[in-house]
Amino acid sequence: MKQNRLLLKNVQRKYNNENILIEGNRFAMLNAPDDTPADEVVDCTGLAILPAFYNAHNHAAMTLLRGYADDMPLQEWLNDHIWPYEATLKSEDYTQGSYLACLEMIKTGTVFFNDMYFDIERTIDVVNEMGMRAAIGLTMMDFLPKEAIEANFKFLENWSDPSGGRIQLAICPHAIYTVSKELFIRCADVARSNGVKLHFHLSESRQEVNDCIAAHGMSPVKLLHEWGVLGPNCIAAHVVHVDDDDVKILADTGVTVAHCPCSNMKLGSGHFRDRLMIEHGVRVAIGTDGCSSNNNLSMQEEMKFAALLAKSNSGPEVLPKKTVFTWATENGAKAFDLNAGFVEEGRLADAVLIDTNNERMVPCHHFVSNWIYSADSSCIHSVLCDGRFIMRNGHVDGEQEIIARFKHHILNR
Amino acid sequence: MKQNRLLLKNVQRKYNNENILIEGNRFAMLNAPDDTPADEVVDCTGLAILPAFYNAHNHAAMTLLRGYADDMPLQEWLNDHIWPYEATLKSEDYTQGSYLACLEMIKTGTVFFNDMYFDIERTIDVVNEMGMRAAIGLTMMDFLPKEAIEANFKFLENWSDPSGGRIQLAICPHAIYTVSKELFIRCADVARSNGVKLHFHLSESRQEVNDCIAAHGMSPVKLLHEWGVLGPNCIAAHVVHVDDDDVKILADTGVTVAHCPCSNMKLGSGHFRDRLMIEHGVRVAIGTDGCSSNNNLSMQEEMKFAALLAKSNSGPEVLPKKTVFTWATENGAKAFDLNAGFVEEGRLADAVLIDTNNERMVPCHHFVSNWIYSADSSCIHSVLCDGRFIMRNGHVDGEQEIIARFKHHILNR
Repeated sequence: MKQNRLLLKNVQRKYNNENILIEGNRFAMLNAPDDTPADEVVDCTGLAILPAFYNAHNHAAMTLLRGYADDMPLQEWLNDHIWPYEATLKSEDYTQGSYLACLEMIKTGTVFFNDMYFDIERTIDVVNEMGMRAAIGLTMMDFLPKEAIEANFKFLENWSDPSGGRIQLAICPHAIYTVSKELFIRCADVARSNGVKLHFHLSESRQEVNDCIAAHGMSPVKLLHEWGVLGPNCIAAHVVHVDDDDVKILADTGVTVAHCPCSNMKLGSGHFRDRLMIEHGVRVAIGTDGCSSNNNLSMQEEMKFAALLAKSNSGPEVLPKKTVFTWATENGAKAFDLNAGFVEEGRLADAVLIDTNNERMVPCHHFVSNWIYSADSSCIHSVLCDGRFIMRNGHVDGEQEIIARFKHHILNR
Repeated sequence: MKQNRLLLKNVQRKYNNENILIEGNRFAMLNAPDDTPADEVVDCTGLAILPAFYNAHNHAAMTLLRGYADDMPLQEWLNDHIWPYEATLKSEDYTQGSYLACLEMIKTGTVFFNDMYFDIERTIDVVNEMGMRAAIGLTMMDFLPKEAIEANFKFLENWSDPSGGRIQLAICPHAIYTVSKELFIRCADVARSNGVKLHFHLSESRQEVNDCIAAHGMSPVKLLHEWGVLGPNCIAAHVVHVDDDDVKILADTGVTVAHCPCSNMKLGSGHFRDRLMIEHGVRVAIGTDGCSSNNNLSMQEEMKFAALLAKSNSGPEVLPKKTVFTWATENGAKAFDLNAGFVEEGRLADAVLIDTNNERMVPCHHFVSNWIYSADSSCIHSVLCDGRFIMRNGHVDGEQEIIARFKHHILNR
């Protein structure tokens, strides 16, 4: 089959202007000649290309709860506000919440998110339609009906990706305080035997760690390690309260840590141990968490929070710009086996095009510095995922309809 | 003289839609009838109005150094990078840097900034032209030529505001480690006798405090208090390393503290003592600092950083949304004797109009929560200062020319 050829003309890459050819869903040629034949040629004068974002921890449809409860700690927030509200959610809520989330992510340069939530078929449909990538799994908890848990394992066996390679399923045991040993281990076994990711919350709050030590005589990391859960297919979100031994285990087992600085800060969950993670060589990626504890899904903003939080707690030289950029792009892609996170020949053609004439990108002593420390979404001109524009010149197809439908739905639910 | 009457039609204020009449530079009538006569009527359907931002600490023309040096501590950053670069700056640099700063501030909803830098006549001209407000003062340091210091005091005596009330001068002794006791006290005396603000850095780093204690046997706050400097006309920037006694002095003397969360975090300067400031009733405002240590001038972003930093260090209930909003608006205005910071009859007509259909403002469980925790500059539709639009439908008059001139200047300097 002939693959579509898209030529980005005169785009800035690493301070030089060049042409970039995309063939199908991959970068086919950098520094392509001006007369390279293509089905579509896009003039990118004044635009710079960078890898797009891979959001390593999200509950996308929680856009429904944006601003619903602020300024309180995790357990009060969950028990008294979030969980009661979530108990009222129905299928159409997940659809509308997922649309809003995808729209927001695309507008902030994110092409992939790792999602743990409910009614996942709704989110899968929306991601497929919006042209994004995702890893999607049902939140597994002991209090779910037995049939729902069995149905989810069955769903995994029979599922086939409707998107032609952009969507993967994941298994998502919520956390050690909501999932029994038996279910957690079963989740891990099923994930391994099906070659999918295992996505869970880990050591998010001091209380979780204290309760675990009281009940099991060891930290949550050591407990999961003893259960045989931890491995390179694991994505552990938050991972705030850890000691040297914990971090060494995470490094040795190849777990990806999804650092969620905004959520951890807003809920007062504790200080992420950047220096320790870096010293031990843990693979760290970045997640926004659900936008009820953030309260948005901007990975660009999350990079700045991650970097400044590290500096504030551990010193200004910790988590320099290149490292936090790697966390938000390359490491997120690697964690989900995506040959992406770089603008390089052969890689998946995911990218953001940035307006170099936006006031926040001027002057340009260091382009990535401006992108991390100065930019916001107003600097993003276009977004490419899998070789196709999912945002173009600031516009996402159908965006006004998505907002109107969402508002109408909320008014009438 | 007949005053221009501007009618904002159908604008959302506190969840209701109403008409707001602006007469001259003031809000003249809320809930105005539909048939209120006006020189101009603007349909604000889908827009919400909120007070604009008052940036309490800035070095505007440092836009020139955006991204010039990152990921290092304050003294290394100043001594090895910022000060050597600044030594090369000429008048036209200050002009171009100020234009870029004003453009960026307007686009992020700021109408006023408190500026300490060099060649201040250039910044005054730019602020006047751009239609903003500012308090502007020359950075006073011992190493300035004696004539420059004398000229600055003389300038203050002979100056008259070209903007008709939008610009005030300030006296800006840089800090206790760069300004002698004699010059600091003279600055304070001149400020008091001329009825202008005294703007300085205070207790920004641990080293500053340690050096002060070693040299004077007391903290910087106590030293300035002993010198008779502190009073309600003082704006003290940063104020990170303080104890209970220091904070009590700041409260008792009526000093405004300009909290600069991004700069403090990025330089690893230490943890602002939100809880202590709030307990003692210190008036806290928010500043971006110069954008070489931030690296932008967005007060909207600064609110989120202030709130999340407080929660991260002191608990999720500290610095709730209403308080941080007050800091960024009302407190900044009050500190500079501006009858502003509220959308109320009789107040100066400064405001932002926010697009309620932007994906980050949806859903709307709590409007101010969305504004602080979720929004970015893409949500800002228009900005009013002194009764006039300085940004309208996302556009600032001359913005492309400002960027082009700045880039051309940098290339040729």
